[in-house]
Amino acid sequence: MRVGLDVGGTKTDAVAVAPSGDIVARLRRPTGWGPDAVARTITDVVAALAAEPGMESERISSVGVGIPGQVEPGTTRVVHAVNLGVDDLDLAAAVGPRLGVPVQVENDVKAAALGADAIHRAAGREVASMAYLNLGTGVAAGIVADGVLWRGSRGAAGEVGHIPVDLHGPVCRCGQRGCVEALAGGGAIAARWREAPYPVLDVFDAADAGDQRARELRAGLASGVAAAIRVLVLTADVDTVVLGGGLTALGDRLLDDIRAELRTAAAASAFMRSLHLDERVEVLPVGSPAAALGAAIVGATRDPEEVLAHG
Amino acid sequence: MRVGLDVGGTKTDAVAVAPSGDIVARLRRPTGWGPDAVARTITDVVAALAAEPGMESERISSVGVGIPGQVEPGTTRVVHAVNLGVDDLDLAAAVGPRLGVPVQVENDVKAAALGADAIHRAAGREVASMAYLNLGTGVAAGIVADGVLWRGSRGAAGEVGHIPVDLHGPVCRCGQRGCVEALAGGGAIAARWREAPYPVLDVFDAADAGDQRARELRAGLASGVAAAIRVLVLTADVDTVVLGGGLTALGDRLLDDIRAELRTAAAASAFMRSLHLDERVEVLPVGSPAAALGAAIVGATRDPEEVLAHG
Repeated sequence: MRVGLDVGGTKTDAVAVAPSGDIVARLRRPTGWGPDAVARTITDVVAALAAEPGMESERISSVGVGIPGQVEPGTTRVVHAVNLGVDDLDLAAAVGPRLGVPVQVENDVKAAALGADAIHRAAGREVASMAYLNLGTGVAAGIVADGVLWRGSRGAAGEVGHIPVDLHGPVCRCGQRGCVEALAGGGAIAARWREAPYPVLDVFDAADAGDQRARELRAGLASGVAAAIRVLVLTADVDTVVLGGGLTALGDRLLDDIRAELRTAAAASAFMRSLHLDERVEVLPVGSPAAALGAAIVGATRDPEEVLAHG
Repeated sequence: MRVGLDVGGTKTDAVAVAPSGDIVARLRRPTGWGPDAVARTITDVVAALAAEPGMESERISSVGVGIPGQVEPGTTRVVHAVNLGVDDLDLAAAVGPRLGVPVQVENDVKAAALGADAIHRAAGREVASMAYLNLGTGVAAGIVADGVLWRGSRGAAGEVGHIPVDLHGPVCRCGQRGCVEALAGGGAIAARWREAPYPVLDVFDAADAGDQRARELRAGLASGVAAAIRVLVLTADVDTVVLGGGLTALGDRLLDDIRAELRTAAAASAFMRSLHLDERVEVLPVGSPAAALGAAIVGATRDPEEVLAHG
């Protein structure tokens, strides 16, 4: 039984995956803050998962962890996981001895890309290549081709959130102007909008009610996501772009905006129309365990280089 | 002995490559216009190459052809090679019977990417992944990782020339506004400048002489190329971006502009500075047989899927 964990800023999602690929147990727990608490969260969640119904007689063979931070290529060392209060931590060293099984670590968006690809395959909708585009506080992507994660040479693969797409756009937290994330990141939108429990949802509602500022922010979100999709297809030519992350809770309201933006932008270009970008975008079902499932796949990879085949 | 041809709009460059990877013969001939003349050019050039000194006793085992047009994935069918007067032609069917050896066909920029990678390896400067960015009449890229060409799912991989990077930029021949190619394509620059034998060189000279319009065009060229480099690194995270194509005859005048633009654009962003993009760009030596060499590599690949490993 392979275990995969998606360690998020507030909660940790864990799955146990049978050799068949089926998810046989799943649970969520709050995530602790700081290196020690994050390590304890991981070992506690794995223990709780092992005690779930149907897991009593099962042996856990590996643990994979998806984490919102940079993972040093070829290692299990996490750096700059600011939402977890972790600056620098060798996660396998921290939890491996207590778990007693091999532990692998991957960036959570890259893990979710592998998981989204596995979900496609399990549903009989295998594609040669896909990008998973995460729309949360920030914007980042993971690319999977033939079931293999594209990691790149220095860990910047999929960082499409920081590609400037509007020279006159808002300043991004990265310091550049008009980045995809400055337009489409939930954090950037919230910072330019009023206080609200769900700021991006509030922007959508206010835009529907006719608020001009909200309409601009909403249009910027669609244009930023559309730009990221164009970049992913015109660079890596992925077959499908799967959207996930907190903002996709908006469902069809978001997807309809993005598809309309892709169609409008392509209207003047036969070349762009020939790519049918609007038909190549889809949304991961809300609550899908893509990141945890992808982490389980990473965890079962003995040699980390196997998932690093391209870099 | 593997033979590779780079069939250009005006001339065809051909090389014979020994099993060691060394180029043992090379020649150039004018390219004919239209499907029949292009096929005849290819068979004539291969015959001429076979008659070169040192080739008399050698057997040609395969022929690869790089061509400025779309090649239907997994086939040897060329479509929309407008600079050759070829609209739709199965090139292997057209020349294979006369050549009597296996023939493979690849887009010329993608072939040049494989060749540039091979040149790096031969020089002992192997990198895990690279992009070859062709700056000619148009702008397009090829991506190679671990020696394998990334072809993508539907033939759009590397079409970074048509990613819009300035919403207020000039209209591109593709119909969109502010594409990389609208800023940095030799054809687009020439169309917005006065008649001259070498329009982009003339723009550089006029800019040095203080002409304001020339300065804007020259700055646009640097900003378009810099945008393409950012896209390639922040999506595929290639280790190195190798520039080639006609515009690179400008040499350091072009490269210095691009590096300065990358440094200026990164000045406000610690994240972008950490990527050291200015140090990851280089120019293919003028006259390098990268495309012909890459075509020879493609030609020696029995199963076209081998160079299509990623999609």
